[in-house]
Amino acid sequence: MKDEDFASFAKKNHFIWGPEPEIYGGSAGLYSYGLNGKLLKNKIENRFREIFILNDFWEIETPLITPEAVWNASGHLEKFVDKILVCSKCNSMVRADNFIEKQLKIDASSFTDKKILETVTKKNLKCPRCNGRFLEEVRHFNLMMKTNLGFEDAYIRPETATTTYLPFKNFYDFFRKKLPFGVFQIGKAFRNEVSPRQNILRMREFTQAEAQLFIFENEKNKFSKIKNILEESLPLIPVKARKKRNATIKQALKEKWILNKALAWAIWLSYEYALSLGIPKNRIRFRQHAKEEMAHYAEDAWDLEVRTENYGWIEVIGNHDRGNFDLKQHGKFSGQNMSAEGKVPGIVEIAAGIDRLFFCLIENSYVSENVNGRKRAVLKFKPKVAPIQAAVFPLQLKDKLPELARKIYLDLKNFFPGFTIIYDEAGSIGKRYRRMDEVGTPFCITIDYDSLKDKDVTIRDRDSMKQKRVKIIDLPAVLSVGLSK
Amino acid sequence: MKDEDFASFAKKNHFIWGPEPEIYGGSAGLYSYGLNGKLLKNKIENRFREIFILNDFWEIETPLITPEAVWNASGHLEKFVDKILVCSKCNSMVRADNFIEKQLKIDASSFTDKKILETVTKKNLKCPRCNGRFLEEVRHFNLMMKTNLGFEDAYIRPETATTTYLPFKNFYDFFRKKLPFGVFQIGKAFRNEVSPRQNILRMREFTQAEAQLFIFENEKNKFSKIKNILEESLPLIPVKARKKRNATIKQALKEKWILNKALAWAIWLSYEYALSLGIPKNRIRFRQHAKEEMAHYAEDAWDLEVRTENYGWIEVIGNHDRGNFDLKQHGKFSGQNMSAEGKVPGIVEIAAGIDRLFFCLIENSYVSENVNGRKRAVLKFKPKVAPIQAAVFPLQLKDKLPELARKIYLDLKNFFPGFTIIYDEAGSIGKRYRRMDEVGTPFCITIDYDSLKDKDVTIRDRDSMKQKRVKIIDLPAVLSVGLSK
Repeated sequence: MKDEDFASFAKKNHFIWGPEPEIYGGSAGLYSYGLNGKLLKNKIENRFREIFILNDFWEIETPLITPEAVWNASGHLEKFVDKILVCSKCNSMVRADNFIEKQLKIDASSFTDKKILETVTKKNLKCPRCNGRFLEEVRHFNLMMKTNLGFEDAYIRPETATTTYLPFKNFYDFFRKKLPFGVFQIGKAFRNEVSPRQNILRMREFTQAEAQLFIFENEKNKFSKIKNILEESLPLIPVKARKKRNATIKQALKEKWILNKALAWAIWLSYEYALSLGIPKNRIRFRQHAKEEMAHYAEDAWDLEVRTENYGWIEVIGNHDRGNFDLKQHGKFSGQNMSAEGKVPGIVEIAAGIDRLFFCLIENSYVSENVNGRKRAVLKFKPKVAPIQAAVFPLQLKDKLPELARKIYLDLKNFFPGFTIIYDEAGSIGKRYRRMDEVGTPFCITIDYDSLKDKDVTIRDRDSMKQKRVKIIDLPAVLSVGLSK
Repeated sequence: MKDEDFASFAKKNHFIWGPEPEIYGGSAGLYSYGLNGKLLKNKIENRFREIFILNDFWEIETPLITPEAVWNASGHLEKFVDKILVCSKCNSMVRADNFIEKQLKIDASSFTDKKILETVTKKNLKCPRCNGRFLEEVRHFNLMMKTNLGFEDAYIRPETATTTYLPFKNFYDFFRKKLPFGVFQIGKAFRNEVSPRQNILRMREFTQAEAQLFIFENEKNKFSKIKNILEESLPLIPVKARKKRNATIKQALKEKWILNKALAWAIWLSYEYALSLGIPKNRIRFRQHAKEEMAHYAEDAWDLEVRTENYGWIEVIGNHDRGNFDLKQHGKFSGQNMSAEGKVPGIVEIAAGIDRLFFCLIENSYVSENVNGRKRAVLKFKPKVAPIQAAVFPLQLKDKLPELARKIYLDLKNFFPGFTIIYDEAGSIGKRYRRMDEVGTPFCITIDYDSLKDKDVTIRDRDSMKQKRVKIIDLPAVLSVGLSK
């Protein structure tokens, strides 16, 4: 599915609207989840909940607005900046590192301000828009959005992670002073990107699901949960190996590709999650960060990447060993004791981008088929991940068909509380099938005249398009089987 | 439960932490949901989802950050302000209307700036802190939190409602140009309260669940869903009647207490929701707003109020007939056509405060009992609303008891995907019971030595404290019955 196709397909089918607010012309980097989109997004988030709770993580919810002190400690105030060059003539701005990289084909990501200005002068770099000279200064543009609490400066969080570290002492009490333990948070984060782009891939407001494992540094290699998964295979690109290797976790640890067992388990868990959503195995790989590329807090980092048609491999879930940087910093800056048994615990993080998973799911599930000379667009979601699990249609709007259909619809809704069942009576059956194909509904149930006397209905399968008759009384059982996948 | 008791009880049991971030001294009006609190909050939100989806509403999710133009149109930039008096001596600030009301026992909520200053001079009002004179100006303090999108001014939304109105044209397409239709949004909203107070009742960051029914003005009194609920009784305090009247909906409409059928249905739906959470009938009433009290957009307003021990009756859900103010304003300011069939639709709103429901649920469920001369604190939640539905305990940490307990725990977890089951092995059984009582867990399951040979376990009921033996194989069925309440 092409980039532009994605935007128009997602808009037309009420997955994603934007840039929002549309009626006011839209603001770059803001999108809404429409009526079908929100159903899918909830399922992606709830799947995260299920898997992480099953693996002994607990959920919390902290404020999004945070006083300045927090971001001083975390390093975000100083380091979470884009360096900007401003044109002296037309005032337009470019991000220095990207611009230099594009012009000179060199990596400028670690350039100091001085080095940037020297490079601009030496290579005589000019404004790409008007060819004017740049001002002789590098502006620091912090990506955090600033606001106020009362009259004091505050920031809207740029990640959930840091806000999940702050209540460490409360976790420690809850888990009765016994490490390791896991906590996660699903919520919004905000970055004032200089150039938001690629629809929901780089937004100014986005949703993260980030799980944090608190574990002593010297326990990371004794992590007992690793035992059950040593023989599982992962598609890894270790920095050392320089290319993709399908290796068992045992092997990856033996070769010292992955820093420790706790991180290996985290990588495996992120894989489990992505696969359970229905992202195909052959579209997933784990890329290890090189030293230069790693964030200031990271000791080892492995991105779960998904191959997209538009942008190639993109980062979707980041798995990081953060050492004990975070708790150390917050202990130092707050003056509070952030240690346990005299040691400051480390953290292993699994940070998923919910919007990116959403994008990948739609892009990877999209199939355009030719059926009897007509194009059929269909999203082949896993049945239980689809926004809508089943749709109930009355064949006609008369002779008690809508009444029976509505009764079946309500019964199914009550029977499947975690699933989404809808009722639709508008347009021909063919039209209704096509609408449901485009949003990936695995089962359509039609109530026709035979239903009235034979007490049976037609179930139509999304992928095979085959229809079969099923007794109304057997519907829950038949759907249960189909939806268990 | 007393105010202070609530805060310490909620903190101790990991429901609510704060003011957050605690380790940095805390910022007024910011709180976190702890590990037990988040479980309960999710259940309150999911109950809203279930009930509103069952009543044909659809969910969406819009950005929280919104360009200035939106709040110009909605009236929030102009009207969402507190008027402030500043002391010339000590610089402290007071909210003018509250201050005058407190000092002179008169309602000052509609005073102009001029009237405020006149009153201060005439009555010689002084700073309550240092007795200094006030500056001769009234400052307007907008409650919206300001931030930036790129370099442009933007605001963090002070309510979800307005952000739900903006995509009206997309809804209209989705519902195939057929009104009425309903849409809801659950999410954060932000208000820079001058004096946040009462724990989670008046926060700077809070969660709303707001449902919007889009309906033509002239259809509001023909709303067909009213038919099934005409005989339902509601505890109403109509402005006309000046006191509480238990009336059927039919009667309330006949007496013209409630403006129209659509609003009456909304009021009933909010009642259904509150009751389904387990708030007792005798603690709920609907108070109609007098004309002077209504927000600038409202044509009729009925607050669902809950009686609390600390603060008396408090507003928890607001039901408003907003006329067609909102779509008209956004049509005018955006220059877009916000009409359907040539008319601008009206809106009936059900606006629930999730944090307030949370507070009321804990406060109303709390019971302190004397059991054998010892205090037992217990939260008597409805079983399916409780944060944790069941806890599984091994009697001892040896002889394969933990293994069997853990197996039962995992089986139950898989059997009840929508519910929360936990495993706890720390401390004596009595201690574990007490912990579960304090967070309102209806069922505790203990695995003992008899369990190994007889394949049965003990189930202990939270409210009666009675224990009974149940075969392991029958556990899902027995719990299903208990948890259906």
